[in-house]
Order: sequence, then structure tokens, then C-alpha cells
Amino acid sequence: MTLRLHDYAASANCYKVRLALAQLGIPYERVPVDIFAGETLTDDFARRNPARTTPVLELEDGSHLPESGAILLYLADGTPLFPDDRAERAQVVRWLLFEQADVIAPVAGLRFRLLTGRFAPDEPRVARARAAADAVLSVLDAHLTGREFFAAERYTVADIALYGYLHVAHEAGIGLDGHPQVARWLERVAGQPGYINDLEPYPENARPGVSRSIYD
Amino acid sequence: MTLRLHDYAASANCYKVRLALAQLGIPYERVPVDIFAGETLTDDFARRNPARTTPVLELEDGSHLPESGAILLYLADGTPLFPDDRAERAQVVRWLLFEQADVIAPVAGLRFRLLTGRFAPDEPRVARARAAADAVLSVLDAHLTGREFFAAERYTVADIALYGYLHVAHEAGIGLDGHPQVARWLERVAGQPGYINDLEPYPENARPGVSRSIYD
Repeated sequence: MTLRLHDYAASANCYKVRLALAQLGIPYERVPVDIFAGETLTDDFARRNPARTTPVLELEDGSHLPESGAILLYLADGTPLFPDDRAERAQVVRWLLFEQADVIAPVAGLRFRLLTGRFAPDEPRVARARAAADAVLSVLDAHLTGREFFAAERYTVADIALYGYLHVAHEAGIGLDGHPQVARWLERVAGQPGYINDLEPYPENARPGVSRSIYD
Repeated sequence: MTLRLHDYAASANCYKVRLALAQLGIPYERVPVDIFAGETLTDDFARRNPARTTPVLELEDGSHLPESGAILLYLADGTPLFPDDRAERAQVVRWLLFEQADVIAPVAGLRFRLLTGRFAPDEPRVARARAAADAVLSVLDAHLTGREFFAAERYTVADIALYGYLHVAHEAGIGLDGHPQVARWLERVAGQPGYINDLEPYPENARPGVSRSIYD
């Protein structure tokens, strides 16, 4: 049995995994999950992931692995995308955790709510989220000064994880003018061998009032 | 040179690392960082961690590792707290990521804001955070049904990470009455060999108007 990726085309968390699979040349079966049509709300999906999020990687033994960062580390283990040195591996994990803890809420959360009509552009909370995103980008920009990639002096799954939502931050009105290191790093990632970008826009059924998902 | 832990006594993210160090029997030097007295706002601290959070582990080679989850994995590598099997390791990482992405905001965030006087108990956003915490606890309770620990059928750093803030969730008015598996698991963790609990209460200087920290 091959790997199966339970996957949503418009989720950048899912796109991160598709990018890693492409760059690692790993064959897999893509199982589409329409998260806004209620397909993560079923008992069947809860057995795959009680948190009802995508992506979920179904391994050869039939077990299920949720959380994009955990999937990235699993797939990249033993490859140049997740190096062998213990201290370098820890730095890769550090940035995977930072991305989920500090980048997702202001960047991915704001983008989703703006693009699907949950927030109006002129609400005060939009400005607050943009300010929070800008502070996070300053941290990333400072770290990238004098570095080409986030960890281990090479392109790793830490870069893939951070790239997922940062490369579309501008769609949430989050600018990179004050963060030139981040802007250059985005170009560097897009220039990596095997790079793909198949992230799709949010469809009509992601809009409030239509969506049937955990995001309502 | 020994390991140095840049550490704040009232941070449960720091406590997680102290618990792991105690259970692994690893000697270290504790470097107190008074995060509410501005000690994470210095240029010196930014060099250790541009995100200005604690804990930060300073390794033998003088490099710095932030993010409690990354520190836990680094310390536990090669020990029973982070098993060798690739799929089991991935499940440990999965729960470390889930904790930072989904538990911290409603549980740790709410607790901090209530205990330091940033939120009043009767604000609508308190009720909203408690509802979000309850939903997260339902996910954890479902996963623990039929399991003693979160991953790898044994006590691992995933349990340590989740225990950090969940064992004080009640201080934020987040109850476990509807989550008996989580309540029993908390007792199981507290019964592990080498268990310590030296988490301190928030001090007076954590209050708004006094604090000089990234949390203002």
C-alpha cells in the first residue's frame, strides 16, 4: 500500500506536504477532503484525526499522522531536508513549532477570514492582526540576516513550513517592504529544485453561511 | 561547559523543560530571566532568541535553542522519553505541535490574562476562550480513550508538553468534569518516576501597568 494524503487543495498546511512530497520524489495517493462541505465533521474523519484538521498522512500500515509539521519531519527523515546532526535537527523543529505557534494565527488566520468574507478589511481586528504579523516578520527577518535558510545552513522542511503561508501573506495585506530578508528568502525557496505551487484559492463554499466546517 | 537553561520560574513552557531535565537526570545551570522586568527586551536576549520568549537552552557549543518543544525533543533524543521508532516519533511530534498550535492560546493565554488581571472574569472573551479550551479538551479526551499516554504507548515528552499548561487549566476556570480521560492522565503523569512540580505563581510585576514584556 502506498502513502495516502488526506488533503485540501486550498489549505497551505496541505500544500506544504505536497511540496515536500514533490521535492522528495515520494509517490502518494491524494484523497481530497472538502473541509467546507462538512467532510471533516464525519465520524470517519474523526477516526483519522480527532482534531478534524487537514492534512492527515495515512501510512503504509494504515495508521494516521495529522499535523503538517509532524508529516514534514516524518517524510524528510533521512533526507537532506531534515539533516542528521542533532543540534541542526533541533533548530529545524524549533522553526516548525514557531510557525504553528506564532505565524499561523496572524498570517493564515487573517488571510482566511479576509478572503472568505469573515472579516471586513476596515475592522480594527484586521489592523491588529497585521501589526502582530509584522512583529513576527521582524523576528524572521532578523534571523535571516546573514543566513540563506532558517536552519542547518541549508534548505529544510523548516523553510517549507514557513513558506506555506508566508508566500501568500500579501493576500491578507501583510507587506514585506520592511522585511527584505524574508522577501529574498521567499524567492530562494521558489528557486529550489522540484519546487511546485499548486495551492488553490478558497472556493465559494468556504464563505460564512455556506461553509460547514470547524472554522465556523 | 554544562547546559544552561534561560528560564522563568512562572512559565509552564519553562517548567516543561525543568521536568524533563529532572526526569532524565541531566545536570544544568539555571539562568533566571525575569520576563516581566524587561529582561527579554534587551539586545543580549534577542541574540539568544529573536522571538524574545523563554525557555532558551544554551548548548555546550554556545548555540541557543528556543521553543520548549524543540528543547524537549533535543534533550529526550535517545532516551525512552522520545522513542526510536520512526512512526512513534512522528506521533510524539504531532502532539507537541498540537499543544503549541491549539492548547496554548485558549488555555495558557486565558490563564495568564485572568491571573494577572488583564481580563476580568465576566468578559465575553473569557467565555469564548473557555469554550475553545473545552473543544480542545474534547479532542484530547477522545484520543486518550483506550490509551494511557498520548503517543508510542508510553510516557514521552508529548505528555510533558501537554501537561505543562493542562495541569493548571483549572486556574483559568477550565474544568475537567466532562473530560475524565484527561483528568486520569494528569494523575498518571504526576505519578511518573522523577516527577517534580516547581511551577511558581505569577508575581506582582506580571500585572499590566507594571510589566515590561512582550506580553503587554
